[in-house]
Amino acid sequence: MNDFLPDVIIRRLPSYYRQLQRLEAANIEQISSSQLGEQMHQTASQIRRDLNCIGAGGRQGYGYRVSGLKRHIGKMLGMDREHAMVVISSKGIGQAVLEDVAMMGGPFRLLAIFTDASLQTGGETPEVLVLPAAQLEAFLAAHDVEIAVIAVPSAEAPAVYDRVTACGIRAVWNFAPVDLDHDNRRATVVNVHLMDSLQVLSCKITQR
Amino acid sequence: MNDFLPDVIIRRLPSYYRQLQRLEAANIEQISSSQLGEQMHQTASQIRRDLNCIGAGGRQGYGYRVSGLKRHIGKMLGMDREHAMVVISSKGIGQAVLEDVAMMGGPFRLLAIFTDASLQTGGETPEVLVLPAAQLEAFLAAHDVEIAVIAVPSAEAPAVYDRVTACGIRAVWNFAPVDLDHDNRRATVVNVHLMDSLQVLSCKITQR
Repeated sequence: MNDFLPDVIIRRLPSYYRQLQRLEAANIEQISSSQLGEQMHQTASQIRRDLNCIGAGGRQGYGYRVSGLKRHIGKMLGMDREHAMVVISSKGIGQAVLEDVAMMGGPFRLLAIFTDASLQTGGETPEVLVLPAAQLEAFLAAHDVEIAVIAVPSAEAPAVYDRVTACGIRAVWNFAPVDLDHDNRRATVVNVHLMDSLQVLSCKITQR
Repeated sequence: MNDFLPDVIIRRLPSYYRQLQRLEAANIEQISSSQLGEQMHQTASQIRRDLNCIGAGGRQGYGYRVSGLKRHIGKMLGMDREHAMVVISSKGIGQAVLEDVAMMGGPFRLLAIFTDASLQTGGETPEVLVLPAAQLEAFLAAHDVEIAVIAVPSAEAPAVYDRVTACGIRAVWNFAPVDLDHDNRRATVVNVHLMDSLQVLSCKITQR
């Protein structure tokens, strides 16, 4: 595995993985860079550059084997092992994550949601503990948790970040509209800036 | 306004806007590209290139006026006018968007949520209608709505997309893990791929 894989390539890997899942589901065994490029709205040379970069060169006149490429990228994305998660939430996003995790399944296993709000559990959602926020430290001490999902208002997020990293959490998926720990010194943080995405839409329709 | 502003720059504008809001809130009136670069973990020359590209050149030895630059970028992001929105949701994400919109305020005004699930309203959330999904067309015919938020499972999303675009909606913020209308022929679509973001985190900790 290349330790210096640039962020810009890492960020494109999930869409390759998604497309390869679709191809595999359609029983397509083999694909060329130009076909893949057409489906993903990229140039064939961009596809070849990206895939070369992750050590997946295609074969001249054949292209890529769908299942092998999917497995390779899946491994890079950590899809081949389970990731235990907890959510710390004071908002409805806890409910949303609960339902999303139920839908996506895969290697992400949500162990518990820490919230002082009431959530609707049951129905389509899997077995997930809903616990008061005060029990966070005790739970993290007793369970092997890899990822903490922070979904609280901006003002509360740094304190929650301090709490989870003090408990040894080294990976944070952050929904609060604030940048936590820019240098990723205590944990690897990936920010979901929902407002940014809405502003990108607003910018595009404003320019239209 | 530049009609051909590249996507890669549009996607960076919200973080400029966020940083300038912070600076303005801290009563900082003027900033150089190197200071801004340091705060945003970018090089000064990247900052200058981006801002030149949007027609906001700094002044040699002075830099940028915070309030003017914030207003300029805010205008590009459509922050200077109201955007009426509806959410179509069969998941808890409706609840999350409801609460997020309440928190962020600004120019995004949520008129109604169409869902057949039960949502908790009231409390901190603003006045938002919660209506059965079957009333979508009648509501869109009677109200001036700019943005539709699609937050339903993948299998249902294309049908919802057809329904809102048939009603004249030209902007879609899509939370379903499926690409709708790649060529943006019927509407401008911005996709929020939550799973992609979680996979980026998983990739980074896997490589660590």
